Amino acid sequence: MSNKKQNILIIGAGLCGSLLALRLGQRGYNVTVFEMRPDLRTTDISAGRSINLAFSDRGIKAMKLVGIEDKVKELCIPMNGRMLHDKDGNTFLSNYSGKDYEFINSISRGELNGLLLTEAEKHDNVSIHFNKKCKSVDFEKTTALFQDYITKDEFVEDADCIIATDGAGSALRKSYYLAKKFLFSFSQDYLSYGYKELSFLPTKTGDYKTYKNALHIWPRSSFMLIALPNLDGSFTVTLFLSYDEGEYNFNNLTTPELVTEFFQKEFPDALEIMPNLVDDFFENPTAALGTVKCSPWHYKGNTLLMGDAAHAIVPFYGQGMNASFEDVVEFDKALDQHLDNWEQIFKAYEKNRKKDTDAIADLAIDNFHEMKGHVVNPIFQEKRKIEMALEKEFPKEYSSKYSLVTFNENVGYRQAMLTGRAQDKAILNMLTDGIISSQDDLKSLLEKVKVETEAILEDDRIAGL
Amino acid sequence: MSNKKQNILIIGAGLCGSLLALRLGQRGYNVTVFEMRPDLRTTDISAGRSINLAFSDRGIKAMKLVGIEDKVKELCIPMNGRMLHDKDGNTFLSNYSGKDYEFINSISRGELNGLLLTEAEKHDNVSIHFNKKCKSVDFEKTTALFQDYITKDEFVEDADCIIATDGAGSALRKSYYLAKKFLFSFSQDYLSYGYKELSFLPTKTGDYKTYKNALHIWPRSSFMLIALPNLDGSFTVTLFLSYDEGEYNFNNLTTPELVTEFFQKEFPDALEIMPNLVDDFFENPTAALGTVKCSPWHYKGNTLLMGDAAHAIVPFYGQGMNASFEDVVEFDKALDQHLDNWEQIFKAYEKNRKKDTDAIADLAIDNFHEMKGHVVNPIFQEKRKIEMALEKEFPKEYSSKYSLVTFNENVGYRQAMLTGRAQDKAILNMLTDGIISSQDDLKSLLEKVKVETEAILEDDRIAGL
Repeated sequence: MSNKKQNILIIGAGLCGSLLALRLGQRGYNVTVFEMRPDLRTTDISAGRSINLAFSDRGIKAMKLVGIEDKVKELCIPMNGRMLHDKDGNTFLSNYSGKDYEFINSISRGELNGLLLTEAEKHDNVSIHFNKKCKSVDFEKTTALFQDYITKDEFVEDADCIIATDGAGSALRKSYYLAKKFLFSFSQDYLSYGYKELSFLPTKTGDYKTYKNALHIWPRSSFMLIALPNLDGSFTVTLFLSYDEGEYNFNNLTTPELVTEFFQKEFPDALEIMPNLVDDFFENPTAALGTVKCSPWHYKGNTLLMGDAAHAIVPFYGQGMNASFEDVVEFDKALDQHLDNWEQIFKAYEKNRKKDTDAIADLAIDNFHEMKGHVVNPIFQEKRKIEMALEKEFPKEYSSKYSLVTFNENVGYRQAMLTGRAQDKAILNMLTDGIISSQDDLKSLLEKVKVETEAILEDDRIAGL
Repeated sequence: MSNKKQNILIIGAGLCGSLLALRLGQRGYNVTVFEMRPDLRTTDISAGRSINLAFSDRGIKAMKLVGIEDKVKELCIPMNGRMLHDKDGNTFLSNYSGKDYEFINSISRGELNGLLLTEAEKHDNVSIHFNKKCKSVDFEKTTALFQDYITKDEFVEDADCIIATDGAGSALRKSYYLAKKFLFSFSQDYLSYGYKELSFLPTKTGDYKTYKNALHIWPRSSFMLIALPNLDGSFTVTLFLSYDEGEYNFNNLTTPELVTEFFQKEFPDALEIMPNLVDDFFENPTAALGTVKCSPWHYKGNTLLMGDAAHAIVPFYGQGMNASFEDVVEFDKALDQHLDNWEQIFKAYEKNRKKDTDAIADLAIDNFHEMKGHVVNPIFQEKRKIEMALEKEFPKEYSSKYSLVTFNENVGYRQAMLTGRAQDKAILNMLTDGIISSQDDLKSLLEKVKVETEAILEDDRIAGL
């Protein structure tokens, strides 16, 4: 398919849309992007939204594809592990991997998005328009209806194909659902938990108030607080809490006194460095935690969903942005296959990709339970110890589920999930049965874990699971 | 809560709604039912819809609750097993259970629905109105908007509470989704297969053209044909086939010649007794196979979803109607708990019930793959042989997954799924590993299966699965 004359309309210039625009611009397509918000490089629109994110190897792979890895690195703060905080304020650093070179990064959503927009706009064949909200998509005519936020005027745009990267509330996805023109499988699943963003401000001299190079976690079994560093010396702090269960919840934390009492009791060391707690708590919104899956992502060769529009996930694996960036890498591979038309490209892309985005959605839910219950179960701690030792001793032969998901960008999420879950099951069961312990010789441990993992996978295959 | 003055509005007088109306009428509530279709006792509206259904122990339990078991039994045709048909027309009867007294029934949807309506209307406090379609529900005001099919007039009804039993396309569920007033988790999942109803007509003397007391299956691995008997000597035949994959599919079976060729090749013995094939095929619609799940089912104490409106499932376990009838049994239990208000009743009902309707939805998908692949895998056949022998020899100690789901109405679907799947996995793995065979002593087989099943369940518990 000759691409020189192809006009591609992208709905949404968030992280996924701006990266896609950049890549398609590099490939020579005529790319037009419409974004509902103002240009975030010139307007502050961050209030209450997730202002920093975990950025790791799958995301980095995408930055390499478009050649801006070095520029992105300047925005990154490495986080080598989880810094766990108990109720007495004791801390314990748990590295993400037994391999020194494996770590994740904290990155500013706004800075990264701005960089991607600027890089995309360097291409004459890419144009980006702000304050234009997509109201609906006519996927049979390949046209989209927009409204200008400022003039309120409505206008219709057409293109050779439309790719919607307009996030969890996607207008294209809504059009698929409401039109009932084809069988559209769709799910939205909410946790009974919400989240609220808070902050640790920098010290007066601009320094970090707590250890910079970690993702801080206050795991409290049925709820948790986390904190990620920003380049300006602050941390973005997020409280994950039930809406209506437990002694304290979002529905009953209604006064400054109750909020302070809750933090005093559960997160005293955090409270000490957040004099701004009450203001943050009552100024910032409480947001929902949802998973969206759907299929098909495309309608013929006309329209395609990508990023959160196709697969929004909960944030607990730090993979939301990385998965969306990986979408662009995988879409680029489909383009490389020189297929004849957009329908073939979209079909090949979805067939290859959907199993992986389904998997990371499920893994992200798993990890919520693992993170908030982090310190509770001694057998989980013992497993972690064994896995760290195996990763350190056998860096090429062993990777934990977390490492497979986070640091093995050439293993798909689904394969990471299957192998990772089987490994977890193997180790936990052998520990419980006294077949292994963290004192064992590492070579023999590795062998036992590999054999048992393979046996579990084989048993599942035989049972057709 | 005194129920004498409570006005309950039921939307939909299908199988679930009419049983619910009967039961709530028996309990003394003022019940008003609105149904969008005409009265099926006086109008033929069956065309193209599923006209007979599998009816089994969970459904029978509900009929006992309302005291009409004997009347329903007159409508039943027992089916003792699956009659499998191979491509050469050879048949093989595989009983549903090793226990003689365990069988399922074929029953006419229309006859059963008519009986339930008639029984409900015997109560002065129950009134049923036909040709009134629900357009939307205001769940904050507890009112529903209806349109009369004949006069086209719209009118609003209010009640103390509204229960929607209006099926997979529920107006209340749509109102929950569209209003966005609370976090509503929702999924609709379509298979890439559709179904079409066909028929074997009776012989000229009114007899059955093939064996009456079985559910006939022509399993062909990637598609299948099934047939269930009707009281009039006919069978309702259903073709389950991919929309777009395989040599023959619903999208490419576009001419009488192709349809006949397909049946000649795949179902020759069926084709012999269906001279009406081509007419049926092109007159009857192709329908979709979808699963619907959602949560919450209720909004405060105002409104509640029940039956297919809350949990539509694919038909492969023959449990759709049975699950909806069981809903009424479980709702009746919640009413027995003498809770203070509708919100408590609805909450208790959903908390107890949802895990089970989620499970039967997943089991029904599993069973599609099992049914269409029925004859393919020798190890599955060996498993079935062992389970039949165990059920026969130890009727109180062993029930297969199928029996747990179908004949053990006092075991919830979720428990049946967990135990049944672990049993399947235990037997399949021990067969593959040569640890057991169908020649073994039954007492020792039972012991080994029980021990291995428990070990599988325990391993999953340890791994937090």
